[in-house]
Amino acid sequence: MSAARAVVLLSGGLDSTTCLAWARAQGFACHTLAVDYGQRHRVELEAARAIAARSNNVEHREIAVDLRVLGGSALTAAIAVPKHRALDAMADQIPVTYVPARNTILLALALAYAETLGARDIVAGMNALDYSGYPDCRPEFVAAFERVAALGTRAGAEGTRFRIHTPLMALDKAGIIRLGQSLGVDYGLTHSCYDPAADGAACGACDACRLRSKGFEEAGLPDPTRYGSSPNRGTGCVSS
Amino acid sequence: MSAARAVVLLSGGLDSTTCLAWARAQGFACHTLAVDYGQRHRVELEAARAIAARSNNVEHREIAVDLRVLGGSALTAAIAVPKHRALDAMADQIPVTYVPARNTILLALALAYAETLGARDIVAGMNALDYSGYPDCRPEFVAAFERVAALGTRAGAEGTRFRIHTPLMALDKAGIIRLGQSLGVDYGLTHSCYDPAADGAACGACDACRLRSKGFEEAGLPDPTRYGSSPNRGTGCVSS
Repeated sequence: MSAARAVVLLSGGLDSTTCLAWARAQGFACHTLAVDYGQRHRVELEAARAIAARSNNVEHREIAVDLRVLGGSALTAAIAVPKHRALDAMADQIPVTYVPARNTILLALALAYAETLGARDIVAGMNALDYSGYPDCRPEFVAAFERVAALGTRAGAEGTRFRIHTPLMALDKAGIIRLGQSLGVDYGLTHSCYDPAADGAACGACDACRLRSKGFEEAGLPDPTRYGSSPNRGTGCVSS
Repeated sequence: MSAARAVVLLSGGLDSTTCLAWARAQGFACHTLAVDYGQRHRVELEAARAIAARSNNVEHREIAVDLRVLGGSALTAAIAVPKHRALDAMADQIPVTYVPARNTILLALALAYAETLGARDIVAGMNALDYSGYPDCRPEFVAAFERVAALGTRAGAEGTRFRIHTPLMALDKAGIIRLGQSLGVDYGLTHSCYDPAADGAACGACDACRLRSKGFEEAGLPDPTRYGSSPNRGTGCVSS
């Protein structure tokens, strides 16, 4: 019997790359999907391609949907990415890096792809702990989307029960890194920074960089991230 | 007080154009959104632009998401569009013109736009009567998506209750045409055919053409559709 197929949303970041390793360890034949939504951190898409290419038997596709047409987020519009925020402040508010309805759009595209492939499994890196500020990272959102998948597809109408796996939902960043480490993930290939330099180097100061750096520290593992040489790194040295 | 904003999904077809007229009659300030998903019937997108341009105070945007990357439908892939099917057969099965998870994707994009605009109302042309073969045209799907909208957005988390209006849900094609007629819709601008000629003329034989033609007949109104001169029109003269 051939392995069941799964669609894995692969952004090229630490979280989704860990998800891919998890899905492979579960025995799924993985079809990775990267979504080019006009994000400023384009290097993410290259990272996703490189990660998929280094994994055996992973088929990678990239789909473009230019959310800049709709505006509204620091990740796609000309709004400054916040720097040097206190990590405990991140959890309590919805940041400007929130992209309206992003995970609804990503899951809708993954669902279309899964249905086309005849897959019923979708794997996504939503995480309620570090990203509690993002409403579309909560388990109740994922459950509501599973219902949409059941009702809004031919496969669902014919009895397929789509499952959205979120293996990182209850882990903190250190826990995610430990999971990935145990599965052999090369985090040097991954990209997290919201505001990288032109050569792809991480800024070290945006929320994503700070969560990532803290994760490696707490996991007791070396941080393989390539940071830029700008004075942007660390806390307090430049105002946001 | 300025009018409440609504996002209207406008494909350029008969149904969505009627929805736009309905939304305007409700007093909404309308922001139309056309989605270029790689459909073969490109003339639809031009029709949407023309319809929005002829309406006062309607802001139109077009967003591209190339679903051909994912494959799986006669509307986007190299699968033949069925012709001359019996109309009662359409209602009972899911046709090859079904695009996997299309309405989930369209509503996700409309939701992102609505959130960006600060709108809570979305208007879409889903219709359970003529399109009962499409699972994502049913009221229970729409209700499930409203729950996703509530849970998966910042505005929802902050208390906005998004509403997806489907004014055509319970109407047959003749009823839709009568509604549009009462609201002053110029159906000559709209496009329905799944398989138009290069000059935009309708084939007269695909499911969309046949439903449309029957609708005008039953509504007792002249059909303004420009049909091609190919022998494709009517029933029985060419095999599908």
